[in-house]
Amino acid sequence: MSIQDELKAFNTQMGEVIDVHAAMSVLHWDQEVFMPPKGAGARGRQLATLAALSHRLFTAESLGERLNYLNVNKKELTEDQAIQVSESLYDYEQAQKLPEAFVEQFAQEQSKAYEAWIQARKDSDFKQFAPHLEILVDLLRQKAEYMGYDGSPYDALLSEYERGISTAELKTIFSELAPRQRDLVAKIVASEHQPDLAWVDKNWDEQVQWDLGVDVLRDMGYDFDAGRQDKSVHPFTTNFDQADVRVTTRIHPRELFSGLTGSIHEGGHALYEQGFLECDRRTVLAEAISLGIHESQSRMWENIIGRSQPFWNHYTPRFQAAYGKQLDGITPEQMYAAINHVQPSFIRVEADECTYNLHVILRFELEVDLIEGRLDVKDVPEAWNAKVKDYLGLDVPDDAHGCLQDIHWSHGSMGYFPTYTLGNLYASQLFEQIEKDLPDIWSEVGAGQFAPLLEWLRARVHNVGRRKQATVLIEDITGKAPDSEAFMRYLNTKYGALYQL
Amino acid sequence: MSIQDELKAFNTQMGEVIDVHAAMSVLHWDQEVFMPPKGAGARGRQLATLAALSHRLFTAESLGERLNYLNVNKKELTEDQAIQVSESLYDYEQAQKLPEAFVEQFAQEQSKAYEAWIQARKDSDFKQFAPHLEILVDLLRQKAEYMGYDGSPYDALLSEYERGISTAELKTIFSELAPRQRDLVAKIVASEHQPDLAWVDKNWDEQVQWDLGVDVLRDMGYDFDAGRQDKSVHPFTTNFDQADVRVTTRIHPRELFSGLTGSIHEGGHALYEQGFLECDRRTVLAEAISLGIHESQSRMWENIIGRSQPFWNHYTPRFQAAYGKQLDGITPEQMYAAINHVQPSFIRVEADECTYNLHVILRFELEVDLIEGRLDVKDVPEAWNAKVKDYLGLDVPDDAHGCLQDIHWSHGSMGYFPTYTLGNLYASQLFEQIEKDLPDIWSEVGAGQFAPLLEWLRARVHNVGRRKQATVLIEDITGKAPDSEAFMRYLNTKYGALYQL
Repeated sequence: MSIQDELKAFNTQMGEVIDVHAAMSVLHWDQEVFMPPKGAGARGRQLATLAALSHRLFTAESLGERLNYLNVNKKELTEDQAIQVSESLYDYEQAQKLPEAFVEQFAQEQSKAYEAWIQARKDSDFKQFAPHLEILVDLLRQKAEYMGYDGSPYDALLSEYERGISTAELKTIFSELAPRQRDLVAKIVASEHQPDLAWVDKNWDEQVQWDLGVDVLRDMGYDFDAGRQDKSVHPFTTNFDQADVRVTTRIHPRELFSGLTGSIHEGGHALYEQGFLECDRRTVLAEAISLGIHESQSRMWENIIGRSQPFWNHYTPRFQAAYGKQLDGITPEQMYAAINHVQPSFIRVEADECTYNLHVILRFELEVDLIEGRLDVKDVPEAWNAKVKDYLGLDVPDDAHGCLQDIHWSHGSMGYFPTYTLGNLYASQLFEQIEKDLPDIWSEVGAGQFAPLLEWLRARVHNVGRRKQATVLIEDITGKAPDSEAFMRYLNTKYGALYQL
Repeated sequence: MSIQDELKAFNTQMGEVIDVHAAMSVLHWDQEVFMPPKGAGARGRQLATLAALSHRLFTAESLGERLNYLNVNKKELTEDQAIQVSESLYDYEQAQKLPEAFVEQFAQEQSKAYEAWIQARKDSDFKQFAPHLEILVDLLRQKAEYMGYDGSPYDALLSEYERGISTAELKTIFSELAPRQRDLVAKIVASEHQPDLAWVDKNWDEQVQWDLGVDVLRDMGYDFDAGRQDKSVHPFTTNFDQADVRVTTRIHPRELFSGLTGSIHEGGHALYEQGFLECDRRTVLAEAISLGIHESQSRMWENIIGRSQPFWNHYTPRFQAAYGKQLDGITPEQMYAAINHVQPSFIRVEADECTYNLHVILRFELEVDLIEGRLDVKDVPEAWNAKVKDYLGLDVPDDAHGCLQDIHWSHGSMGYFPTYTLGNLYASQLFEQIEKDLPDIWSEVGAGQFAPLLEWLRARVHNVGRRKQATVLIEDITGKAPDSEAFMRYLNTKYGALYQL
């Protein structure tokens, strides 16, 4: 067989793995969006079976042999093909580390934990969820052992979401960031120039909220023929292919902005995934580099664009037309001030830009303590509440507003949260470059024209797929390694002006 | 290993096959209910991969050996276990007959044909669909050769949906049935006692239609915690487990009844699948006996119950409350007469009880001719239109109202249609027994109380699962082999009174 035929045979074999992963994504999506409650048991079994199958297919000896052969001979391949082979080999070697029985058990426990979390959150009772979280933490510690690590076992978990960054490096970045954000928040809270929010405190028609979200998604360039939006408890984006990338949001009648920002945020993720290259389809190259890069896309759209003055210059009249007299006399400046209101609060997904990373950092610290064995699951609520007091100055009233608020732990995802903050940092670093490359960007946003921005992101980020690692991509584009400088410049400029600090 | 351990090991292995089938059902359901158009290509590949995988799992040598061992030693098993083994062995031997490459190719062509059919039907242009149907007919003829048959190759296809009945037997039953139905229709059309339909010719609020359908489903005993209803082009029922059985319907603003009858029909199917025994879960026993038995459940609920006078005595006030003055002064008798209006028409799924089987029989005859090689795909529209003229006395205006109306051929399903008529025949036979066993059935239906009927169906049909074959079940319950006598008694009594024949 020629090397090209070997690659073709590998792609056929690998395509099956990718298809089974896509099927799992459909089942997960349905589970969170449409599945009736009694379907949960069977769904857990089905996902466990598919996880085991995809693992079995992916770790098949014949696939490994083919992959190693391709890797040894990769100088005969094109540059893209060589990257495809080495990225696949990386995944293969990672997957080899986990026994099939472990993968299946993990998937089963995930499903049970998810259902328990739904109920526990409803009842605001961590004790219902604790036994499941204990099992998951044990499994995660086992997983870290299987995966291997140099420093902390948390490194092993982190690398699944953000390769090339260590727990120690995160601690350094976060320890620089946290006090600066806490100081900024303190100044903002103390400022005499607080936004007028009385006019926002109304009921906002849910259908109008939904329709405006859909409009903005369309304006951003999200292709509704290659995706759809639905409702779920926790907004998310999932893809079954680059031509079927779905988003969800949630609508609260008392919230003018949260359904919209949910749509924009998930839309940012979805644009990334709709933007993989046709030639990379059904290969590992049509995948996100890392969750941090993924989150840089959602955060850039949600915060840097969607919470900007030019954005609201454009959309305020549209909102006024949609809501009628409820928004009579409200100026774009008032919309901008309201959507950027800073106030320490309990719920991460509703947190403003100045407090958001503090939510993330406290979760990161708890996760590291759980995985390194310094914290027992039963003590999580107490530890959580203490950190919220320390970072945000708040007393958590109950578990639903505390340690039960996020879906992630119920999915057995630890090492995931820090990528949110990395996303914020990357987004600011990338956007400083965008402002250089696209000097008219703000007048375009002010005219509701997002195509130039999307084009830049397509060319520099989306089309890259997995060709570069996150830190390499950031350095290539911005000339600097990931750090918190650009992000703090962004916060200080924006909120310094808003709150006249 | 003890025989019980062997069975347990088999059930674990078989459970994977059942889980992959369930995953395929989720992907199919999504494809028809929610998938964005550009997702079709990837979905086809995903379904093809899952079909190949489940086939590979199911035809694994180790599974066959285990199954044969269990079969040889089945006297050591309980009666239920022995049936489970022999039914599984039947499926296994059937599946062995199809090479994996064939299964994968078939699934891929199904997906392409389905997409082409959607567009062809929209454009009312059979030529767009014809090349796909040609491929599918070729594949079906190949399939018949793989499966083997005694008489007609059509027998091989039929047996997938209705075991134990031959093409020749169907021809006999249908040749008795068709002229009697045609004669009855002729008398009805000639009758001077036609129902008043002017009041039905209005727009009916789509949300009210939807809500009433949901109400009736709930009254029937459909468990919404173990299912849900959505909209699709063609109503269908699918199950991912007996605790997740979903239905769809479609709503036309000009149709007072069609969304409702869709819901009731699919609800009848769904009650069957929600009624499998807990102890049979994730085994072949928690499956329908045959499509004819499945259809007997949907037809009984839709027609015998949902188009009865007592049903409308109960629901007319509910409809009047929901639609307000649009139904002022309309009596239950008028509702009953309108929903049972007989008129030869083009669309099978909207056909009345007196013409429905004629639609089925013409499809059956065309399918037999296609599979036996007496008809070319390109000549299908002409042949179709000639038969519609012959059986229904109508001139088909275009392909959308003719041979493109049904989804089935786009799924490569031939041998399926005749089970609809068998369902009608079985339903009438079963219902004559129900009237004997439950003498108060009609006063209960008139009070909106369906629990006694559902209980009877659960005990006599649903809970049986695959323990008996269709003809055996019918004979056990009614004392007679399947025939058209009970059905013609039902039609003649009901329509004789309605049209004063």
